Amino acid sequence: MEGDAVRQVRVRPGMTVGELVQELKTSGAFNGGSLAKACGITEEMFRDDKATTFVGLAGAMVPAGMGGIVSDLVDMGYVDILVSTGANLVHDIVEAIGCRHYHGSADCSDNDLRKQGINRIYDVYVADEAFTQFEEFIQGVFGGLKEGTVISTTELLATVGRNLPSGILATAARKGVPVYCPAVQDSVFGLQFSLFTQTHNVVVDAFRDMKGFLDRCFTAERAGALIIGGGVPKNFIFQGMLLAPHGFSYAVQLTGDRPDLGGLSGATLDEARSWGKLTSDAQGVTVYGDATITLPLLTAAVLERLSRG
Amino acid sequence: MEGDAVRQVRVRPGMTVGELVQELKTSGAFNGGSLAKACGITEEMFRDDKATTFVGLAGAMVPAGMGGIVSDLVDMGYVDILVSTGANLVHDIVEAIGCRHYHGSADCSDNDLRKQGINRIYDVYVADEAFTQFEEFIQGVFGGLKEGTVISTTELLATVGRNLPSGILATAARKGVPVYCPAVQDSVFGLQFSLFTQTHNVVVDAFRDMKGFLDRCFTAERAGALIIGGGVPKNFIFQGMLLAPHGFSYAVQLTGDRPDLGGLSGATLDEARSWGKLTSDAQGVTVYGDATITLPLLTAAVLERLSRG
Amino acid sequence: MEGDAVRQVRVRPGMTVGELVQELKTSGAFNGGSLAKACGITEEMFRDDKATTFVGLAGAMVPAGMGGIVSDLVDMGYVDILVSTGANLVHDIVEAIGCRHYHGSADCSDNDLRKQGINRIYDVYVADEAFTQFEEFIQGVFGGLKEGTVISTTELLATVGRNLPSGILATAARKGVPVYCPAVQDSVFGLQFSLFTQTHNVVVDAFRDMKGFLDRCFTAERAGALIIGGGVPKNFIFQGMLLAPHGFSYAVQLTGDRPDLGGLSGATLDEARSWGKLTSDAQGVTVYGDATITLPLLTAAVLERLSRG
Amino acid sequence: MEGDAVRQVRVRPGMTVGELVQELKTSGAFNGGSLAKACGITEEMFRDDKATTFVGLAGAMVPAGMGGIVSDLVDMGYVDILVSTGANLVHDIVEAIGCRHYHGSADCSDNDLRKQGINRIYDVYVADEAFTQFEEFIQGVFGGLKEGTVISTTELLATVGRNLPSGILATAARKGVPVYCPAVQDSVFGLQFSLFTQTHNVVVDAFRDMKGFLDRCFTAERAGALIIGGGVPKNFIFQGMLLAPHGFSYAVQLTGDRPDLGGLSGATLDEARSWGKLTSDAQGVTVYGDATITLPLLTAAVLERLSRG
Repeated sequence: MEGDAVRQVRVRPGMTVGELVQELKTSGAFNGGSLAKACGITEEMFRDDKATTFVGLAGAMVPAGMGGIVSDLVDMGYVDILVSTGANLVHDIVEAIGCRHYHGSADCSDNDLRKQGINRIYDVYVADEAFTQFEEFIQGVFGGLKEGTVISTTELLATVGRNLPSGILATAARKGVPVYCPAVQDSVFGLQFSLFTQTHNVVVDAFRDMKGFLDRCFTAERAGALIIGGGVPKNFIFQGMLLAPHGFSYAVQLTGDRPDLGGLSGATLDEARSWGKLTSDAQGVTVYGDATITLPLLTAAVLERLSRG
Repeated sequence: MEGDAVRQVRVRPGMTVGELVQELKTSGAFNGGSLAKACGITEEMFRDDKATTFVGLAGAMVPAGMGGIVSDLVDMGYVDILVSTGANLVHDIVEAIGCRHYHGSADCSDNDLRKQGINRIYDVYVADEAFTQFEEFIQGVFGGLKEGTVISTTELLATVGRNLPSGILATAARKGVPVYCPAVQDSVFGLQFSLFTQTHNVVVDAFRDMKGFLDRCFTAERAGALIIGGGVPKNFIFQGMLLAPHGFSYAVQLTGDRPDLGGLSGATLDEARSWGKLTSDAQGVTVYGDATITLPLLTAAVLERLSRG
Repeated sequence: MEGDAVRQVRVRPGMTVGELVQELKTSGAFNGGSLAKACGITEEMFRDDKATTFVGLAGAMVPAGMGGIVSDLVDMGYVDILVSTGANLVHDIVEAIGCRHYHGSADCSDNDLRKQGINRIYDVYVADEAFTQFEEFIQGVFGGLKEGTVISTTELLATVGRNLPSGILATAARKGVPVYCPAVQDSVFGLQFSLFTQTHNVVVDAFRDMKGFLDRCFTAERAGALIIGGGVPKNFIFQGMLLAPHGFSYAVQLTGDRPDLGGLSGATLDEARSWGKLTSDAQGVTVYGDATITLPLLTAAVLERLSRG
Repeated sequence: MEGDAVRQVRVRPGMTVGELVQELKTSGAFNGGSLAKACGITEEMFRDDKATTFVGLAGAMVPAGMGGIVSDLVDMGYVDILVSTGANLVHDIVEAIGCRHYHGSADCSDNDLRKQGINRIYDVYVADEAFTQFEEFIQGVFGGLKEGTVISTTELLATVGRNLPSGILATAARKGVPVYCPAVQDSVFGLQFSLFTQTHNVVVDAFRDMKGFLDRCFTAERAGALIIGGGVPKNFIFQGMLLAPHGFSYAVQLTGDRPDLGGLSGATLDEARSWGKLTSDAQGVTVYGDATITLPLLTAAVLERLSRG
């Protein structure tokens, strides 16, 4: 038979994450095998100086502690363009201004939490107080915008980032990495900006940052995508190639969704080839599972490989 | 034991959808039981003249033939506010201008489809040609906007709807139902508008329609939500209640996602109570499964009940 | 483009289940479309006098009220061979001796239920008392077996069925439909039989009924499979064709599992073709979703078609 | 707020698997957090000399290269009782006699594979030839059984294990760990034994090994369960406690199933408390995801901790 034989995986005490993934490469199959492939593709993408790398961030990744990985990747220069849901940016700001998320339980009385001023995200809790402080901070930033300004979401987010000491937005601002948030209204950030506009004349032009995004898509010699979750970030990153001369050459997708429901979040990377979002010979792999497991595994293994030069 | 006994479901030839759901009510459990509960809540919500009804539309519902149900619900007056992904609106326009989606297969060569100019959405195909005609139509509409206009997404979509003979946007425009699309950039509609702005000075103000939306949330005596899929529409509808005096009183969620991944799309309605998005005594139920099955079942059963007066 | 166009589904008050499924056939896609295909295949399978029909039953179908559909199908002669998990048969007996399952809630304190003598199956409750009565009944049946007997599982289950007034086992016994339960030990039935053997010399020969099963597989002119859930029943039914001259000609699978985890329960019917479990030109379709919704829909629609002659 | 704050996860090149899991413990949430909890519970269970440890093995774990981990755990003495599906044991034997599984692709023509004599398990291939060799080997073992023998499944599997050089069955036989396979008929092993019985008088008494199993459940001072996949092994292990004085004190479940479908495979460990399968104060956690990722992670991290003494 063609193809390599599956060896039975062996684990040993003290093995590194990279060694574990190496075991999954020669041995594993199903999503374990896919994860090993994803590490190979991500490594190649990160090593490719000619490749523009797009990262999509959806799902409650920051509340689940995954934001640090993203900001570290931005800091290390592996991210050229970040596309995020509004919620992840709100929770990034919440952490950056010193508020915290807490380990809670999904098995609780939500009406009791409500009375205690606690908001639940599966098994993570965040207090009403965090949003009060968020409001104070963000209205301060908004207040710095000149009356009559017309601004793009990306510029607005960069402004916020420059006012923060740490986190995804701060790091992206410092490194000059643009952060796109196509559904910025759809978040507590958006609610706050909406309140702001009731007394101020500042316009967020929904399309002002699209040209820059599409230009990057159009001019990229090669392009790669690391899609964490699906949603708007995935669709937005992929649709950028509909007007470009060729699609993504590298694509790694970490998702808990499934293809048969027909939604874009769970759609296969092969489906993306029919649209030209991936080139016909692109390297692409989907790892199905919770990104709170697959993202740390992937990044630890890839950084280990990259550190070997 | 408290609670009603489960009867074994009996089906018979020629039974109506409403009769089947009635069987699931007295007999069924798991998601079958949840579907029966969802019909009861939806019926009550549709009958409640004091309730403002929000409908969220995500997933590739129009390509899968579910758009007709949504436009019929709008036409019958059961929808006060519609929140949709951009993609569903694009495909609604594609159908309204006379192009079609086709039954295909998920088991195919996507590179071959690409060569034939066919784009795949799971087992549905749509031709490049449809997007060519979409471009011609939509640029014509955009061309009717005066230079210097600042417009909201909702107004822009209403303008499009008035130029269409049928479908969701057309029906919503005719009935005066506002259509929100918080991630309008994130769609082929957004790509086209982005191209338009390269030669025209028209600004879509991302926040211009937020006040109207939040006012409806704030002033609703009671509010109900029918959430088809998750994504931005679900989050946007629910977050509207964060600034309102009370949350939704009725909530029905049809989703294929799962709670344990922590994302908002799969989050339980109980989780929403901790945020105050649902009132503490709200009636809410989630039906897990593909909305291409659960939405037709739900609507056929509810319309049958409503028709009985 | 080849293929039929997707029409937008229209639902109307009072439509029959068969009419709804017909709408999904011409209009629907994704799992809605698959369900419509499944109805077509099941109808053809039930009409084909030369086809031997195997039904697999897994998941907590009887506690969820789906047992009545299965026993009705057996009664109507549409089932030639039934393969079930032990648990479904236990709960079938529980109902047949007059005990009941109750509508409960998945959102509860399981430790409190334990103290109240209530056992939970997602949102269905069953009392300890039901198992006490089950024990009394089943030990009575076992007590009727002669010392020294060597018996097959199928014969043992037929004996039980002859002692029951109604339900799946009773109907199967009355109609002479063999019920296979390859993991009979793995159920409360098995626990009870195990207790019985501590004081009685009766042997259940695990392989005694395999020859009859394999003979039916081998000699079937054509064979069809309706797989409700996955598990042992699916694997057992499909493996029967590994030794037969040809595979299943019809196969319908209702499952909530997913293929990418590699387990047999979620495996596609195409995968089964590689093993020869399905013939190369077999008609097969998988409907992903909760069988508490898809099974009643499928059977109501198929019976409606069959009733039209 | 009570509870620890979520720190943002940091990964670094060359970190060990144990260090990564430690990061997930202090930082992670959702299934990443559950995995960290699972490592803690498994470590405690493995360290507890008074605990009898049951391991359940379902899903195509051996074809996916996970069998080596299980046989290593047996070899290291961490497994007291193993309960497996038949399929995993068949593939264990296939490997032990020198045949192999191969890395293939889930995206292929299954009819073409059939013609080439290749059988597919998602993205793993195994040749018809492997089953031919399996047949030769296993019939040789069966041929060594004396006419008139009445044997339990556990004894039969131990006999097979003694005839193999390596793998799960061989290691279990060498270490005296009983292997239960309640659905032994439901596998190619079962088919082969069925063929064997057509010319030989050997009876597998389906209940002969139940007493030993139930005695272990009854007499265990404390009991722990590591459930890999669901299916019959999970149910069989848990039901053992229905007749015991107390339930499991430790329980870790790695599954890709979901609770809302009501099946036992996806049922929560809390549900198991209502039945008394877990004690009221048992430590239990479910990690949702593909065991081809979670099992290697869990075992590497736990072995690292245990090696520190």
